Amino acid sequence: MRSVDVIARKRDGQALTREEIDLFVSGVTSGAWSDYQASALLMAIVIRGMSDQETAWLTDAMVRSGERVDLSDVPGIKVGKHSTGGVGDKVSIVLAPVAAACGVVVPKMSGRGLGHTGGTLDKLESIPGYRINLSIDEFKRVLREVGTSIIGQSASLAPADKKLYALRDVTATIESIPLISASIMSKKLAEGSNALVLDVKCGDGAFMKDVDEARALAQSMVAIGNHAGVRTEAVITDMDAPLGRAVGNSLEIAECIQTLKDEGPADLAGVIRWIAARMLLLGGVVRDEQAAASAVDAAVRSGAALETFRRMVELHGGDPRIIDDPHRLPSAPGRDPLLSSQTGYVTSMRAGLIGRASSVLGAGRETVSAEIDHAVGITINAKPGDRVEAGQPLLELHHRNGRGLAEALTLCRGAFEIGDEAPPARPKILGEVR
Amino acid sequence: MRSVDVIARKRDGQALTREEIDLFVSGVTSGAWSDYQASALLMAIVIRGMSDQETAWLTDAMVRSGERVDLSDVPGIKVGKHSTGGVGDKVSIVLAPVAAACGVVVPKMSGRGLGHTGGTLDKLESIPGYRINLSIDEFKRVLREVGTSIIGQSASLAPADKKLYALRDVTATIESIPLISASIMSKKLAEGSNALVLDVKCGDGAFMKDVDEARALAQSMVAIGNHAGVRTEAVITDMDAPLGRAVGNSLEIAECIQTLKDEGPADLAGVIRWIAARMLLLGGVVRDEQAAASAVDAAVRSGAALETFRRMVELHGGDPRIIDDPHRLPSAPGRDPLLSSQTGYVTSMRAGLIGRASSVLGAGRETVSAEIDHAVGITINAKPGDRVEAGQPLLELHHRNGRGLAEALTLCRGAFEIGDEAPPARPKILGEVR
Repeated sequence: MRSVDVIARKRDGQALTREEIDLFVSGVTSGAWSDYQASALLMAIVIRGMSDQETAWLTDAMVRSGERVDLSDVPGIKVGKHSTGGVGDKVSIVLAPVAAACGVVVPKMSGRGLGHTGGTLDKLESIPGYRINLSIDEFKRVLREVGTSIIGQSASLAPADKKLYALRDVTATIESIPLISASIMSKKLAEGSNALVLDVKCGDGAFMKDVDEARALAQSMVAIGNHAGVRTEAVITDMDAPLGRAVGNSLEIAECIQTLKDEGPADLAGVIRWIAARMLLLGGVVRDEQAAASAVDAAVRSGAALETFRRMVELHGGDPRIIDDPHRLPSAPGRDPLLSSQTGYVTSMRAGLIGRASSVLGAGRETVSAEIDHAVGITINAKPGDRVEAGQPLLELHHRNGRGLAEALTLCRGAFEIGDEAPPARPKILGEVR
Repeated sequence: MRSVDVIARKRDGQALTREEIDLFVSGVTSGAWSDYQASALLMAIVIRGMSDQETAWLTDAMVRSGERVDLSDVPGIKVGKHSTGGVGDKVSIVLAPVAAACGVVVPKMSGRGLGHTGGTLDKLESIPGYRINLSIDEFKRVLREVGTSIIGQSASLAPADKKLYALRDVTATIESIPLISASIMSKKLAEGSNALVLDVKCGDGAFMKDVDEARALAQSMVAIGNHAGVRTEAVITDMDAPLGRAVGNSLEIAECIQTLKDEGPADLAGVIRWIAARMLLLGGVVRDEQAAASAVDAAVRSGAALETFRRMVELHGGDPRIIDDPHRLPSAPGRDPLLSSQTGYVTSMRAGLIGRASSVLGAGRETVSAEIDHAVGITINAKPGDRVEAGQPLLELHHRNGRGLAEALTLCRGAFEIGDEAPPARPKILGEVR
């Protein structure tokens, strides 16, 4: 079987066989397929599509291109969680200790941020001393002792995905539900969890702008997970406006601690409780939805979730004093507000622009190798539905010596719409796929 | 403008602008576009298509990627001719001297054969001494003195096409009418003719199997030519069975000489006369179709066309004695017939298989660098419509010491169908695009 014949079959809209998909993925990994052949097939896949069966085979071949974490010697049901990424999305950092405090094991391997969405690792690294690069043995030790650990993704997982993603990025072949699903799920399945909850973000600040697209992605990923024998569910959550009120690394950690103390913003707390309940059900530690909700509630109110977070930070080498004294987190010297030019209701707030503004201040990176500033970011005072007076601050920019301030202000100003009437309330949970 | 954005626009089915197409072609030529970006865009073009306007811009950009032959100092209207290639297609070698003898100038740059179709250059090189690599100054001198010259295509014409073709060959992106048209026409337009007749072959032995596809290709190429200010016409001719009775380099030259002596096979002579008449009309040397037909007829009967061929061969360094004594052409030591297993009528004869058989004997090449044997090939005794008796030879294989003989016999046997009734006569001219 020649690579050119495999490409031709997908070009003509045919379904590829398992053998053909294996040839492609192993060829990309070994270098037997050239980059130009791989990119031709990727473009044919983007335009012609792939069935759920082809996508499952593609994912499996990508998992087999590298190592697979074996968590079988960690007691308990391991329930993973993945978010497709959004602005102010600090859900995992709160969710993992909440679910662990309720008795499920939450092994979490995360990525860094790129573009306008922040990365969980970057946020955690704003905690002085926190090490994201534990060995797999150290990772398992933390899981056994605390029930959760959040580390960086090992380069040895799904190396085919890394090669393909780099190629897709420069050949306009990112936008494909089968390729996105296979990319995400190959890494998640290589992490060795027994079950998985996916948070598919949808809206201005997310990759998926439209709820139908988000649902299609969710369905594709859930099918892959179940096909691979990992019980998988997805929840589709709103990302038109940023989640919570903090955007930027240390500002978001401070908000996570607030939320673990049951003092966080309602939208953020609501999403976390919803997903945590699903994780408890998948982990089999509760009987039904009501028991799940009660257990989550108790873990937060009792302080057990906060204590789990404190232990995780400690075992990762981080300074646990930030929990009682968030001023120990990095903070930026400059503060400038964006004032409302009119009186009325915030009718919309585009998360994508807020994310770009935060990135411009230094909180994000535009290239993989760029350095980020953990201290800078944005705190939001008015969110959609809130009433504002002319001259009142809509948000505050935390900047370092004015770096990026003018551009960030312009971006933030463009993010707000203010009208005479309050907008209809928009639910944060837009749908589920089980 | 980033290359990835250009790729994305075609991926999404949009028409590219002239500026975007220029960026692509100049990027491929300079190396600013990587091969993997070029192949992604090529695949998007294959699947999404290109309008006539985009194809004309693509062709123009490919012409501008290299040199352009300037024939303005050769007196007369220059009328070029191109065939998309078929089995036993020796039309150009007879046509060029016929049209030149009637007063049009026929500058012809040809390619070598690859796969199952022979190349005009390979056929001419079976004439002892014939040089295909004249300089452009020598080429013009022969054109001025004789009215026609057939040489090899310079590597400096349309270099972007060479790069793109090599990439298309290994990425399953050959099959696209816009890309095929632009590839052919970029080279033809760079050759500097004032008008052009295209012979689009259609059938088992041609790239286009289907008359609708052949017509679409013809229309696309005619649109490009006229868009570039070169009066262009196309004729669609049948290639289900080989053209004439000789397949293989020196065997075809012998048949060309026969045809120039007005003793050639009727199908071959008919196609040549048809195309020659169109060239005289495009060249403006006759008033109407009837005058064109008479002029062509006179050029053959008077011996003027044969004399033009003789002078061209001489000026190219070839041995003109082959004209009166075709036994001076290379000939193969071995002869083996394929005998008919039954009595009846030849109902079909698949040119593709005959072409492959000739190639297997050594007349063609499967890779660009392979050596070919000018002497070997096939002479056909029975063609579709002919009555044959069991045991009568259908064709004769001219081989060198049995090389490829068994495989060639098998291929040829598979090429014939013999039935009880004569098949309906099939015209050689299937259509025209003006």
